Amino acid sequence: MNASFLDAVRWSADGLVPAVAQEAGSGRVLTLAWMNRDALAATARSGVAHYWSRSRARLWRKGESSGHEQRVREIRLDCDDDAILLVVEQAGGIACHTGRERCFYKLLEDGRWRATDPVLKDPQVIYGGR
Amino acid sequence: MNASFLDAVRWSADGLVPAVAQEAGSGRVLTLAWMNRDALAATARSGVAHYWSRSRARLWRKGESSGHEQRVREIRLDCDDDAILLVVEQAGGIACHTGRERCFYKLLEDGRWRATDPVLKDPQVIYGGR
Repeated sequence: MNASFLDAVRWSADGLVPAVAQEAGSGRVLTLAWMNRDALAATARSGVAHYWSRSRARLWRKGESSGHEQRVREIRLDCDDDAILLVVEQAGGIACHTGRERCFYKLLEDGRWRATDPVLKDPQVIYGGR
Repeated sequence: MNASFLDAVRWSADGLVPAVAQEAGSGRVLTLAWMNRDALAATARSGVAHYWSRSRARLWRKGESSGHEQRVREIRLDCDDDAILLVVEQAGGIACHTGRERCFYKLLEDGRWRATDPVLKDPQVIYGGR
């Protein structure tokens, strides 16, 4: 693959950029994750979202444990070349490890974060704990 | 203001979290910017988006130069408490300093980033260069 598009990205000192995933159908913003050069290359090559897990310090194909992969329709870069937007089809309709559609399920109301979105599937079921 | 919602955010070592702004009407993802504690507090207090400018190292009210402020309908936090989503009404329909609706105007196609979105207003006009 011609890798020049990877060189156009302004990776941070840690080699990362934030990547937003948005559901193509509903327009819902699902997740914010992180990509390094390998994650963006793998995403572009495979058509499914790959990220860099900061907590586990490894490349991570979204859905590798849960089955909730993200098929990528568009990969976009911002004006400053330091943020990515993926427009995706979210398998299973669940992007969050808590079993919710999206990770942004907490809404600020009256000075408190309130969970507004239902858990669609028990994480223990998603991740095979039983 | 009760500031406990600020304490719930897992600020990075630099005191920042990424903040995504999405247009309430169209669902378009407009920008990814950064917030520190003061930016989130000011956003919650005022109802218009404030960010931390990493390049200028100062608090920044979106639209203070351009007039293109973002009126905030929702402030959301993600499952890991380290990313913010603002659902906004974008004044002027222009979020990007290049005069485009959104910052994510470059689409990856055939291994190249291609600008897909039109410039709606000349930045020189927006920023008073003439």
